[in-house]
Amino acid sequence: MSLSTPPPRLYRSAADSIPWPDADAAACCQALLDAKTKPRGSLGRLEELACRLAALRGESLPALPSKAVLVMAADHGVAQGGVSAYPPEVTGQMVANFSRGGAAINVLARHAGARVEVVDMGVRFPVKGLAGVRVHSMGPGTEDFTQGPAMRREVAEDALDVGTRLAHELADSGVTLLALGEMGIGNTTAASALTCAFTGLTPEQATGRGTGVDDSGLRRKVEAVRRALEVNRPEPTEPLEVLARLGGFEIAGLAGAALGAASRRVPVLLDGFISSVAGLVAARLCPEVRPFLLTSHLSVESGHGRVLEELGQRPLLDLGLRLGEGTGAALAFGLVDAALHVLHEMATFSAAGVSDTGR
Amino acid sequence: MSLSTPPPRLYRSAADSIPWPDADAAACCQALLDAKTKPRGSLGRLEELACRLAALRGESLPALPSKAVLVMAADHGVAQGGVSAYPPEVTGQMVANFSRGGAAINVLARHAGARVEVVDMGVRFPVKGLAGVRVHSMGPGTEDFTQGPAMRREVAEDALDVGTRLAHELADSGVTLLALGEMGIGNTTAASALTCAFTGLTPEQATGRGTGVDDSGLRRKVEAVRRALEVNRPEPTEPLEVLARLGGFEIAGLAGAALGAASRRVPVLLDGFISSVAGLVAARLCPEVRPFLLTSHLSVESGHGRVLEELGQRPLLDLGLRLGEGTGAALAFGLVDAALHVLHEMATFSAAGVSDTGR
Repeated sequence: MSLSTPPPRLYRSAADSIPWPDADAAACCQALLDAKTKPRGSLGRLEELACRLAALRGESLPALPSKAVLVMAADHGVAQGGVSAYPPEVTGQMVANFSRGGAAINVLARHAGARVEVVDMGVRFPVKGLAGVRVHSMGPGTEDFTQGPAMRREVAEDALDVGTRLAHELADSGVTLLALGEMGIGNTTAASALTCAFTGLTPEQATGRGTGVDDSGLRRKVEAVRRALEVNRPEPTEPLEVLARLGGFEIAGLAGAALGAASRRVPVLLDGFISSVAGLVAARLCPEVRPFLLTSHLSVESGHGRVLEELGQRPLLDLGLRLGEGTGAALAFGLVDAALHVLHEMATFSAAGVSDTGR
Repeated sequence: MSLSTPPPRLYRSAADSIPWPDADAAACCQALLDAKTKPRGSLGRLEELACRLAALRGESLPALPSKAVLVMAADHGVAQGGVSAYPPEVTGQMVANFSRGGAAINVLARHAGARVEVVDMGVRFPVKGLAGVRVHSMGPGTEDFTQGPAMRREVAEDALDVGTRLAHELADSGVTLLALGEMGIGNTTAASALTCAFTGLTPEQATGRGTGVDDSGLRRKVEAVRRALEVNRPEPTEPLEVLARLGGFEIAGLAGAALGAASRRVPVLLDGFISSVAGLVAARLCPEVRPFLLTSHLSVESGHGRVLEELGQRPLLDLGLRLGEGTGAALAFGLVDAALHVLHEMATFSAAGVSDTGR
């Protein structure tokens, strides 16, 4: 036993070094867009996106992003309680599917020109010997949070650190836009419990059908969330405790990744409900991360809209998705690229000889 | 003078030959999607899109589309009345910009892998000697419809035929998804008048700021629409007359293109307000075209939502766009492609060894 002070946690030092967005770069980016051959502001949210990236990257003419999807997978003790349409074995099977390139996120990321990084944060039934899967397992899934905390506080911090470290690695290897995806049978139940703890929604309001449970499955989910809140009594002002008691290894890892990315000026593209809840965890741990969190889409999962409100964000897409994995974020990559293509490639009024009277 | 019957109009014979969507192909496509490693229906509107394309193309596994944007440009007599933030010279200048590849639609179409076909349907101040612009001019812009009909009925039919012929040419050259774009100073005013005539909206409800007129410009637009309706007294049950009295050459051409494309089983992707009004004209001329009209986005132009309602369509995107040219449709190309990539490339439950319990 050592009596010396432990070194500061990586995720905490990352959180402490998140820079401010560069408002001058954004204003300069808007001026560049205003010189293009189109009525001012007529590309709406594409123009906002370009300016936001300029502010976050600190460059008035940000380069086309080098994109990655970080897909973190883990299991959940609560999944034993019949809260999902699928058995826990599916988490490991889907990790194998990611590894072989057959899942939706592989297909969508490939066509968006994004790499996919798959991390086992604590899969209960892992498939052995998979190529390209990073294993940072915190254990064979969380504890059942209807009986007590999902994990110890130290484990939550370990998982946060794993995410921060991976985000730093990806930034160091050139990634400039990071999407957060996930896989974990039972993880909408954990995300619903976290949403209740942070936003005050009731279990009924925050709990949806996830991958598609029937009415009795939905009743079991709501009841599991209610019991988790009762047993764990989370205090929203203690975000690390909330995360440890109600979260998941993948949710903690993704929250850490958001902090790590932001500390390197890498914007974070959130996906659906679970990914956005990880963003909310990061924002509660460190409000300075908020400008770096971009939302891609509004999922059909009932708590998602409220989580996005808490983050102060309007989603780019609303396509009735409820798959996760980062799929909605991968679709939104195309809009981010489009915004930057416009910025880089459109002609200006003066170069094209078009009368600019629409000021 | 000949006493023989004139040959039937091309757009009319196209309208008469529009096929029914193939419901069996759509059902088979959904079955293929249901075997993929994802909860059933969890890709929401992407799955709907894939099945709709299957029905329209008549193939349960439709190929990735070969995409084109048909951008039709023309001027409007009403533009003399100060209804736009830009002078009529800009229509021709923007056609030149399209020809040189510097406009937003060039940039977005290029990255979407779509060709752009530019047609001068009646530009008042054309730039001479442009490469790659098809000239099918119906005259130097329409007449001022606040004084009388915008064009004669025969001219409207000529413009419809031009569009139908071009759509047939594009289909013959392999195009399997056609987006409709436009350019024409003053054409939101014409689109607003058509919207009033077909939907019963008032000029105040159907008229927006277009490229960005100020409050007095907006008052002039509303007044122009009101006078156009008063002078021309359009009967919604006579769509060809409505088109001739209140339309534009580019709007008529695009309506003809929609009919031509549908007659060859080529789905049509509508863009914003004006493009969608052209779709509505086509649907009033021939209701069988309706299933072939896909909507890409909801523009900020005030009448657009109602036009989409009339077409029975929910837009895929809502990004605050108000540029036209086909830009919203070009952004939606990415979603269509994504839907088909999922259909073609995702692994099935059985091939990936994933438990399929979520029926």
